[in-house]
Amino acid sequence: MQKLQLFNSLSGKKEIFKPIVKDYVGMYVCGPTVYSNVHLGNCRTWISFDLIYRYLKHLGYKVRYVRNITDVGHLEEDSDDGEEKIEPMEVVQKYTVDFFQTISLFNLLPPSIEPTATGHIIDQIELIKLIIKKGYAYEINGSVYFDVLKFNKSFNYGKLSNRKIEELISNTRSIEGQNDKKNPQDFALWKKAEAKHIMRWPSPWSNGFPGWHLECTAMSTKYLGKKFDIHGGGLDLKFPHHECEIAQGEAITGEKQVNYWVHSNMLTLNGKKMSKSTGNNILPKDIIDGNNTFFSKSFKPEVIRFYMLQSHYRNIVDISNDALLASERGFNKLVSAINLIDNLKVSSTSNGFDLIKWEKTCYESMNDDFNSPLLLAQLFEAVKYINSINNDKFSISNKDLIFLKNKMNIFFYEVLGLKIPNSNDKSILNNKIDGTINLLIKYREKARLNNDFETSDLIRDELLKLGVKLNDSKDGTNYIIN
Amino acid sequence: MQKLQLFNSLSGKKEIFKPIVKDYVGMYVCGPTVYSNVHLGNCRTWISFDLIYRYLKHLGYKVRYVRNITDVGHLEEDSDDGEEKIEPMEVVQKYTVDFFQTISLFNLLPPSIEPTATGHIIDQIELIKLIIKKGYAYEINGSVYFDVLKFNKSFNYGKLSNRKIEELISNTRSIEGQNDKKNPQDFALWKKAEAKHIMRWPSPWSNGFPGWHLECTAMSTKYLGKKFDIHGGGLDLKFPHHECEIAQGEAITGEKQVNYWVHSNMLTLNGKKMSKSTGNNILPKDIIDGNNTFFSKSFKPEVIRFYMLQSHYRNIVDISNDALLASERGFNKLVSAINLIDNLKVSSTSNGFDLIKWEKTCYESMNDDFNSPLLLAQLFEAVKYINSINNDKFSISNKDLIFLKNKMNIFFYEVLGLKIPNSNDKSILNNKIDGTINLLIKYREKARLNNDFETSDLIRDELLKLGVKLNDSKDGTNYIIN
Repeated sequence: MQKLQLFNSLSGKKEIFKPIVKDYVGMYVCGPTVYSNVHLGNCRTWISFDLIYRYLKHLGYKVRYVRNITDVGHLEEDSDDGEEKIEPMEVVQKYTVDFFQTISLFNLLPPSIEPTATGHIIDQIELIKLIIKKGYAYEINGSVYFDVLKFNKSFNYGKLSNRKIEELISNTRSIEGQNDKKNPQDFALWKKAEAKHIMRWPSPWSNGFPGWHLECTAMSTKYLGKKFDIHGGGLDLKFPHHECEIAQGEAITGEKQVNYWVHSNMLTLNGKKMSKSTGNNILPKDIIDGNNTFFSKSFKPEVIRFYMLQSHYRNIVDISNDALLASERGFNKLVSAINLIDNLKVSSTSNGFDLIKWEKTCYESMNDDFNSPLLLAQLFEAVKYINSINNDKFSISNKDLIFLKNKMNIFFYEVLGLKIPNSNDKSILNNKIDGTINLLIKYREKARLNNDFETSDLIRDELLKLGVKLNDSKDGTNYIIN
Repeated sequence: MQKLQLFNSLSGKKEIFKPIVKDYVGMYVCGPTVYSNVHLGNCRTWISFDLIYRYLKHLGYKVRYVRNITDVGHLEEDSDDGEEKIEPMEVVQKYTVDFFQTISLFNLLPPSIEPTATGHIIDQIELIKLIIKKGYAYEINGSVYFDVLKFNKSFNYGKLSNRKIEELISNTRSIEGQNDKKNPQDFALWKKAEAKHIMRWPSPWSNGFPGWHLECTAMSTKYLGKKFDIHGGGLDLKFPHHECEIAQGEAITGEKQVNYWVHSNMLTLNGKKMSKSTGNNILPKDIIDGNNTFFSKSFKPEVIRFYMLQSHYRNIVDISNDALLASERGFNKLVSAINLIDNLKVSSTSNGFDLIKWEKTCYESMNDDFNSPLLLAQLFEAVKYINSINNDKFSISNKDLIFLKNKMNIFFYEVLGLKIPNSNDKSILNNKIDGTINLLIKYREKARLNNDFETSDLIRDELLKLGVKLNDSKDGTNYIIN
């Protein structure tokens, strides 16, 4: 079978995946900043890497998956408000709880380690000392900056995002002079805290806080080493964040730190960039609650995950009412077929479908840079086959049915991380209960009109056994469920 | 109405609660050590403080509730195992996920801040510097110890647990000489790391790690200030942990740091201390799954929470099969009555129950050191009244019914943090669906035998509308739910 290939943003092409240590994979993915609600675009990024994590595990790799939490914030103190001071860690807690609640809806596996930026201030200070020692950073007025021009003399700054240093210089000249940096391209490793800045730690340079780019280098290096396999994140982080991470990593070791850079594309809403300021914005829970003006109905998180996986992680996903409605129909078709497998009739032989070739194509899809839409297309081939068996057009042997069921379960649950929503949906179950009880009440009424009191009493008694108590009154019959 | 009183372990008696700042409460509670699964005794402690947190909030206080996570561990590296090195933060992640999953079963509110020990190493180092400066700590060979004897000259060491320093000296003399401490009562603020010790940070004294007692002082001081209202924890932490916290806090400020020390009592299993080594031990999930040898059936987390709240937090809770079975019956009675409220008939006047007095007694119960068993006893008085109204023995007016329903909801859901489990229980709902559908199939069969095909087709079609598809075959009728 073809080997796993993945698209490396650094080389701009698909490459065969070769881990540094046989059977082991180290993967770092940029996680949330917990100073606001997680939005759907963020969720898409983490769903993409959840797919990659799941598939690597499925292939038998022992994966150490590190996804950080950025909890160093830039909140400032209000001047005179005596009592009601903002405590940044209270804000962090609120949005960390929101983050975990939101991603749990989408059935993401927990990473191996979820380190926080505030938990690694010492590691960041030690890295800054090292970068200064190597000559690629300088201190001015209590702040420390990375010297991009000097770094670029020995290494190549801009190689991930294909930017040339000359262009960067001419593009950033306009904002020069706004701080102490030697050159506007330089970025902060440590910032001296202004009087109002709440989060601050002592350091050799000042009471201050680390620059944002540094935390990921500190945590990836600590938990995955000076060289590791995969670094992922949203496409919007490619520049400057990941470019700066590369510079920090190479400044420390003199060598390339990450073998494969993987970027997940963005999510748009009705064809436009999601943005709070334009109002073209929706929170995951508002889609799931149906509490929004964008969509005609609520959609389950399983449908949203399925919809995202219908696009390749490197393509833009545009979310719209029609697209979600169509996706929901497709998802329901897939779920119905999976539910049907157990009830299929088996024959002495199979015909109409080449299961071996099908399985091979499924794996080839995923081995082709985690191509989930191609895998889903294959699952829908199996859906057609399942429905054809059900309609007696094709047949399946018992052995092949076990094989098919096993593979469908692996791809649906384990690899794609999909779930059958009904199984936990209280409101749907309650609707069905209400519906069936009301039908029984109707037929009991009919029996009574026909003076068939034996039947009407039996219905009442058997419902009572099920914990459903009927109350007859002048206005009709209602019921209480215990 | 009587004011809120709580038992202060420091004074050994109930005191009227007076917050330092009007309307605000700062509360610190010792959280989990995430190097093993959370056990049921831990859960009891956090359920106790969840009750206290909920009631303080209900009374209108703005509560900042800080519960820490101890993630600094003492794992050591295996000597020669090349590839499979333990990463402590991977262990931390595993048990942090377990912790959150477990407590979420018991419907605990998230605290305002959940700080980690590794996130506060710098704060701990700064505190050690301060304690050394104040003269209550000394360095030997890269480790720093708190000088208990010197502290005791100016303050009183042992006041929380009523221990006398002379007794402590005679009790600890036997293990003298096992390390560098001046006196065996002294405790570590910083430990130099042995070669094998994995978690370590640079400090002015050595590469090492903070002593366990220090993290709580660092985090409580950082987020609640040098003086705060309530410090809670399990009774087993009273000595030495909380005694050491008091010493650290007073060494820093020269004053009492905590106004009210609150301790939750322990949980036993079949009358004996829970302990892994004796096998008298059970994990929460094993009770809920029914996967254990101690109990005759599974119990829902709501029943376990209810059972714990049937004891006062300062009493021992003994958990046993008979006790849980009895508690489950009680809980079901309470839930049935709450479900019944909406269906009660209203009359022009009420009789048989003094609602005003009842409400007053409910609050008096909680104001008496958060006495949840007394509150539950009052709720069962209301249950009797509700059932009597249902049996036409007593009556209730519409206004009183609204009052009763409102108060029952406040005490049941908001204050006690109880939930009605059915509402989320898939298996119970599925049982009811199966039961009602099978009844409909039975009556459809009857209609067909009577050649009443109109009715039998109607049942089939109406079920299909509800997403239930009937399949008739020679062996009878089965169905698929979509």
